[in-house]
Amino acid sequence: MPQDVRFDLPFDTPVSQHLEYARARHLRWIWDMGLVRSQAGFEEYQSWDLPQAAARTYPHASADDLVVLMNWFSLAFLFDDQFDANQPDRADKIAEVARELIVTPLRPAGSRPRVVCPITLAWAEVWGQLAEGMSLTWQTRFAASWGRFLVAHCEEVDLAARGLAGTLGIDEYALFRRRTVGIHHSIDAGERSRRFEVPPQAMAHPLMERMRDLAADTIGFMNDIHSFERELRRGDGHNLICVLQRERAGSWQDAIDEANRMTQACLDEYVELQARIPQMCDELGLDQDERAGVRMGVEAIQHWINGNYEWALITGRYAAAKEGPAASAELAGRGSVDDLLAV
Amino acid sequence: MPQDVRFDLPFDTPVSQHLEYARARHLRWIWDMGLVRSQAGFEEYQSWDLPQAAARTYPHASADDLVVLMNWFSLAFLFDDQFDANQPDRADKIAEVARELIVTPLRPAGSRPRVVCPITLAWAEVWGQLAEGMSLTWQTRFAASWGRFLVAHCEEVDLAARGLAGTLGIDEYALFRRRTVGIHHSIDAGERSRRFEVPPQAMAHPLMERMRDLAADTIGFMNDIHSFERELRRGDGHNLICVLQRERAGSWQDAIDEANRMTQACLDEYVELQARIPQMCDELGLDQDERAGVRMGVEAIQHWINGNYEWALITGRYAAAKEGPAASAELAGRGSVDDLLAV
Repeated sequence: MPQDVRFDLPFDTPVSQHLEYARARHLRWIWDMGLVRSQAGFEEYQSWDLPQAAARTYPHASADDLVVLMNWFSLAFLFDDQFDANQPDRADKIAEVARELIVTPLRPAGSRPRVVCPITLAWAEVWGQLAEGMSLTWQTRFAASWGRFLVAHCEEVDLAARGLAGTLGIDEYALFRRRTVGIHHSIDAGERSRRFEVPPQAMAHPLMERMRDLAADTIGFMNDIHSFERELRRGDGHNLICVLQRERAGSWQDAIDEANRMTQACLDEYVELQARIPQMCDELGLDQDERAGVRMGVEAIQHWINGNYEWALITGRYAAAKEGPAASAELAGRGSVDDLLAV
Repeated sequence: MPQDVRFDLPFDTPVSQHLEYARARHLRWIWDMGLVRSQAGFEEYQSWDLPQAAARTYPHASADDLVVLMNWFSLAFLFDDQFDANQPDRADKIAEVARELIVTPLRPAGSRPRVVCPITLAWAEVWGQLAEGMSLTWQTRFAASWGRFLVAHCEEVDLAARGLAGTLGIDEYALFRRRTVGIHHSIDAGERSRRFEVPPQAMAHPLMERMRDLAADTIGFMNDIHSFERELRRGDGHNLICVLQRERAGSWQDAIDEANRMTQACLDEYVELQARIPQMCDELGLDQDERAGVRMGVEAIQHWINGNYEWALITGRYAAAKEGPAASAELAGRGSVDDLLAV
C-alpha cells in the first residue's frame, strides 16, 4: 500500500493553530467562488483535507493569511484535475487557462482576467493577496516559479492527450517531475506566509538553488509513491513507480523499493547540503538580519518536505479504494467531478 | 516635426564595430525564418534600421551575439505591428501568440513552441541563445520583465480593439507606458550582451529599481515624441502627446512642449539617482568585482537611453511622410505589410 510508505524525516515541523478557523472560512469561499459546483464535488474536495496541508506547510501564517493560502491550494489542486478524456480539445482549453494563470502575476494586482472561469477569477483574487507587501524581486521569482510549473503541467497534459504519458525514460522523467511538482513557488510562498524574504544573493547562491531542486525531487518522488494507487486507477503514467517498472521490467514491488531508495537519496543529499548553510552565510558576508532570513528560508523548505509528507499519509486524495461520484468520474475518463474551466 | 526633437543627454555611448557584419547575417536570417514574406515587407523593415539600434544599445556584444540581439529585435518589433483592424478576432490571436512568447523562457531551452508561427519559432531559437550561460536568477528576471511587457502589449491591443485607445488619463497613461515600452527586459539583455550580471542584492535595491523605471519612462516618452507622426497616421492614441493634448485641451504644440518637459524631468531624476550608486555599493558592502557588475549594469541603462535616442532620430520607422506598401497597409487598417501570426 504505497500511501502507507513511511520515511524517516530528520526534522519536525509545527502545525498552525489556526487550522479550524481558516478551514471554515475557506470552505465557504470555494462555494462562493464556484470552485465546487456540486455536493459530490464538495465532498470529494473535503476528503482531500487541503486545509491540513496548508496548516502544516505554512505553520506560521496569520489566521487570515492561512485562509488565503488554503484558497490558493484549492484552485491549484482543482485545476490539476481538470482533464477530460472525452473532450478532444480539452488539452487546448487547459493550456489556455494555464497561460492566463501564468500571466496573472505579471499584471498589476487587481486586473481582471482575460480568460474568465472559476479558476482564473479565484487566482486573480488570491494573487492580489499574496503579492501584497512583497518586493518586486519576490514577485518576479514567484511569477517565474509558478509559470515554469504551469508550463510543465501543460506539457504533461499534452503528452497524456497524445497517449505518450508513459514514454519518458527515468532521467528525463526525474527532470520533468522536478518541474511538474510545483515546489519552487510553494517554497516562495513560505516567505509571504511569514512576512520575510530570503536575501536575494542567498537565493541566487548555487547551494540554495540545489537545495530547492532537491526538495522538489524529494517531494515529487514522495508524492508519486503516496499517490501511486490513485494514478494507476486514473491511468496516469506520470509516476516514478510506473516509469521504473516499465524501464527495469521488474515487479511492482521492485519498482516501489527503488522509488523509495531514490527518494531517500534525494532527502539525504538535501540534509547534507543544509549543513553547509552557515558557511554560505559567511561567504556572502550576511549580517544577523540576513542570516535570520536565510534560516527562515530553510525552514520554509523543511515545512514543505515534512508538512506535505504528513498530509500525504492521510489525505483522501491519494486513497487506494474509492467509491461514489469521484470514482465514477474517473472511470468515465474525467479527472474531476465538476468542470471548472467553463463559465 | 517631433522626430527631430533633440534632448541634451549627459552621456555618450559607443557603437559596435560589428554593425555591418552582423547586419548582413541578420538580414539573411529574417528571410530564412519567414519574418519577412514579401519584398515590400523587407524594404519597410530595412528602412527601420534596427541593426543600428542593436549596435548602439549593445555596443559591447561580440559579433555573433550582436546578430542574436538583432534577430531578437526584429521579432519583437515585427510582432508589435501585427494588429489588423479588418480582422475582428485579431486581438485574440495576438494574445495567443503573446502568451506563447511569454512561456518560452519558462520552458527548458530548445523546446518547440506550442503555438507555431514565424514569430514564436524565431523567439524559441533566439531565447535559447540569449539564455545560454546566464544564471537562473537572470533568466527569472528576464522572463518576468519580458512577460510584463507582453501582457501590457496585449492590454494595449485590447483597448484599441474596443475603441478605448485614447481614454487613459495622464497618470494612468504614464504607468501604462512604463509597462508597454519594454525597457526592463531590454536592459536585462545588456548583461547577456556583455556576459556579466548585476549582483542580485544590487538589482533588488530600491535605487536600482527606481533607476530602471525612470529609464523606462524617459525612453517611453522619447519614443512617443519621436514616433508621434507615425502613430497619428496609424490612428494609435497611445501616445503621450495625444493624451496631453486631449486632457489639457491645448494646441498640439503645447502638448509637444509639455511632453518634452516631462521627458526631461524623468531624465534629470535618473541622472540625480545615478550619482548615488557608489553610496549604494558601500551600503551593500560590495567587493570590487561586484562593483564592476553594478557599473556595467548602469552602463547598460545608459546604452539604452542614448542608443535608442540616436536611432530614433534617423529611423524610417518613425518617418512622418511615407509612401508605398507600408503606407497602404496602414491606410487599410493593417499594422504591417506581412502577416506573421499565420503559419
